[in-house]
Amino acid sequence: MNQITWAKKRKLSPEMRIIVKQENIDAGVLMRDIASGRTVILRNENRKPERFCAVGKGLTVKVNVNTGTSPGVVDMAEEEKKIAISEKLGADTIMDLSTGGDVDQIRKHILAKTCLPVGTVPVYQAAIEAKKNRGSIGAMTEEDIFDVIEKNAEDGVDFITVHCGVTRKAMSILARFPREMGVVSRGGAILCSWMKKNGKENPLFSQFDRLLDIAGRYDITLSLGDGMRPGSIADASDRVQFYELKELSRLGRRALAADVQVMIEGPGHLPLNHIKKNVQWEKKLCRGAPFYVLGPLVTDIAPGYDHITGAIGGALAGAYGADLLCYVTPAEHLRLPDVNDVREGLIASKIAAHCADIARGNKDAYKRDLLISRARAKRDWKKQIELAIDSEKADSYRKSRKIEDEDVCTMCGDFCSLKLMEKVFRK
Amino acid sequence: MNQITWAKKRKLSPEMRIIVKQENIDAGVLMRDIASGRTVILRNENRKPERFCAVGKGLTVKVNVNTGTSPGVVDMAEEEKKIAISEKLGADTIMDLSTGGDVDQIRKHILAKTCLPVGTVPVYQAAIEAKKNRGSIGAMTEEDIFDVIEKNAEDGVDFITVHCGVTRKAMSILARFPREMGVVSRGGAILCSWMKKNGKENPLFSQFDRLLDIAGRYDITLSLGDGMRPGSIADASDRVQFYELKELSRLGRRALAADVQVMIEGPGHLPLNHIKKNVQWEKKLCRGAPFYVLGPLVTDIAPGYDHITGAIGGALAGAYGADLLCYVTPAEHLRLPDVNDVREGLIASKIAAHCADIARGNKDAYKRDLLISRARAKRDWKKQIELAIDSEKADSYRKSRKIEDEDVCTMCGDFCSLKLMEKVFRK
Repeated sequence: MNQITWAKKRKLSPEMRIIVKQENIDAGVLMRDIASGRTVILRNENRKPERFCAVGKGLTVKVNVNTGTSPGVVDMAEEEKKIAISEKLGADTIMDLSTGGDVDQIRKHILAKTCLPVGTVPVYQAAIEAKKNRGSIGAMTEEDIFDVIEKNAEDGVDFITVHCGVTRKAMSILARFPREMGVVSRGGAILCSWMKKNGKENPLFSQFDRLLDIAGRYDITLSLGDGMRPGSIADASDRVQFYELKELSRLGRRALAADVQVMIEGPGHLPLNHIKKNVQWEKKLCRGAPFYVLGPLVTDIAPGYDHITGAIGGALAGAYGADLLCYVTPAEHLRLPDVNDVREGLIASKIAAHCADIARGNKDAYKRDLLISRARAKRDWKKQIELAIDSEKADSYRKSRKIEDEDVCTMCGDFCSLKLMEKVFRK
Repeated sequence: MNQITWAKKRKLSPEMRIIVKQENIDAGVLMRDIASGRTVILRNENRKPERFCAVGKGLTVKVNVNTGTSPGVVDMAEEEKKIAISEKLGADTIMDLSTGGDVDQIRKHILAKTCLPVGTVPVYQAAIEAKKNRGSIGAMTEEDIFDVIEKNAEDGVDFITVHCGVTRKAMSILARFPREMGVVSRGGAILCSWMKKNGKENPLFSQFDRLLDIAGRYDITLSLGDGMRPGSIADASDRVQFYELKELSRLGRRALAADVQVMIEGPGHLPLNHIKKNVQWEKKLCRGAPFYVLGPLVTDIAPGYDHITGAIGGALAGAYGADLLCYVTPAEHLRLPDVNDVREGLIASKIAAHCADIARGNKDAYKRDLLISRARAKRDWKKQIELAIDSEKADSYRKSRKIEDEDVCTMCGDFCSLKLMEKVFRK
């Protein structure tokens, strides 16, 4: 029985029991939100992750890490290190976006290695294989796409990105209202390329019921991809982006009716002052379905620092109601990320998610800040470092400058305000 | 004649002419905003900076870099490097917060070295010298404080932080409504300590007219410090913070009447959802006076990454109307920053200021994003890197992974969405 089916019957599934404890929330509320499609539990009948992850209303904001090979870089040892550091630093989900090497084997390997829910983008593999075996992306068949999806589900993938809203109509809107950056989604571009060559509708749209059938059988979550997300500040909140969101909202309703869990993916590059509206649109149009945002990146000018532009956008989106933040690394727009990029990107997104949790009134998040502040007030360096989001870095910073008085730090020394004030208020 | 005096007479000073060009704004609007205290031009009759900086309404959001020695670390070669990198990466102002070594000499040296407006916190030096010469901060006299201020003004300092709102009443509010972190401002703690010891009112408050006299003679800007800023999420937006802001708003009005330019300093540690209100309070209470925020830091748990927590808060504050962002480095809460910390901190704050500029509708900021997006769409890597906020880092990332096809990057290789889409829309 699928999670939504349990919830519609007002029954608590074993997975929901885990989430109730994990998130410290009311079981009835969780059931209601799963039944109405406002919360999803990422899982697959064939492989339950060791660490469960629910995404949605009233829960903490989650963070996804993208890993995987590219046509030019296939290094499984590096991918394993990325997964290890992601788990250590608190990633909630992992997406395997591999497009280089033996993609089937890599996926199986990653599923075996990680305890987290795993997502994929099956159309990548279908396109790679079409290109390899038949010479071009255009030679990909509709069966190819659904075969890969079935294979992914069977292997135990917990959620898949499917760009169902990249339709012929979307392409015609794009042609009428051109953009600076066009389509920056790989999946979106693959499907546009295929539609153009074959003169057909996107099978993920035209055969959506087939998709629902597969997802329903394994109880995996469909992450309805935003192939038309803006890739530039100049393209933000335009017609084709909004058209796609409306299309996804309709598909989301059909999925809910079929007891299939759905997330909606969102931008992308957005000016800071567009973020609130974008989250509100999604929540309203899609009746509260979980919103999975890719950033958003609040400027285009910071390659090398897009973990920071993504943290600014992600914190804001999360505070306004986005539920899952896709991390962005410093390597974005420049190269495939390495292990250190994964670390930097993940911590920046974890900070964003945590700030959003505080803003959303999450008591556990607030308490974490309270505890570190109390340690800081007492100059309890051991505890401060222990409670820091990255204890290793905090510790190495603390130790990097020699200090005579262990009670303070090298910023203020004797003039430590906390120490001065202790004397002022001493009885 | 002071800037405000010029402006009140509806005359354009030579400095205003520079700002009009620099900011691409209307001269009449600038005059009106200077006359009403909504914009300040940082300068000193004794030393006009080479690069002028105006802070306030309708202008770009500015970024300040803190430099200077501490009791434990006095390394002038390092300080010079910090200044050089700050200027290179686009800092708008520099504050010399030195508390170690020969503070007079260091200040003179920094004033000679930099082309930017320079700020200081004179009470630091008064306290250091009292402690050194007379054994304790409590032994500091009122004359000591004003002597240092006069000396700073004479040397050519363009703005000074004066914690005029740290009054006996503020201390009594703090005692009645205790905080987790008390006073985290060094200047604030020094003054509390002095008031407690001497049983007197803060001279920067009780002799505010004397302060106005000095500032007026040199036409320097008073940055009314927030000695009572919250240093923890738990202390945000509390009574004593709000009391101090009200006190500063009254003093600000007195300054304006005396033709003395004023900025108001703001928090500090604030949850993301408090930022809008805090900026609105300041703008309303202080009748639009420029708001100079220290962060704000949106969580306490990220020592080692406070450049990121500060960028999140700063971007938001800037978008809502804050005018000058004090950078925060990864070293915050841990040690005196080194040159690399300055770099990381400054770039994070520059990103925040730029995102805020876009959100505030600044056309030049928008255009910068447009140009880099156009280069990106064409895979013009040279131009992309040239236009990046940190070309050096972008370039080294680009070069760090070998690439066969120079047209794309190692993230997507052949599956570059931009390249795929070019074929789709080719005529």
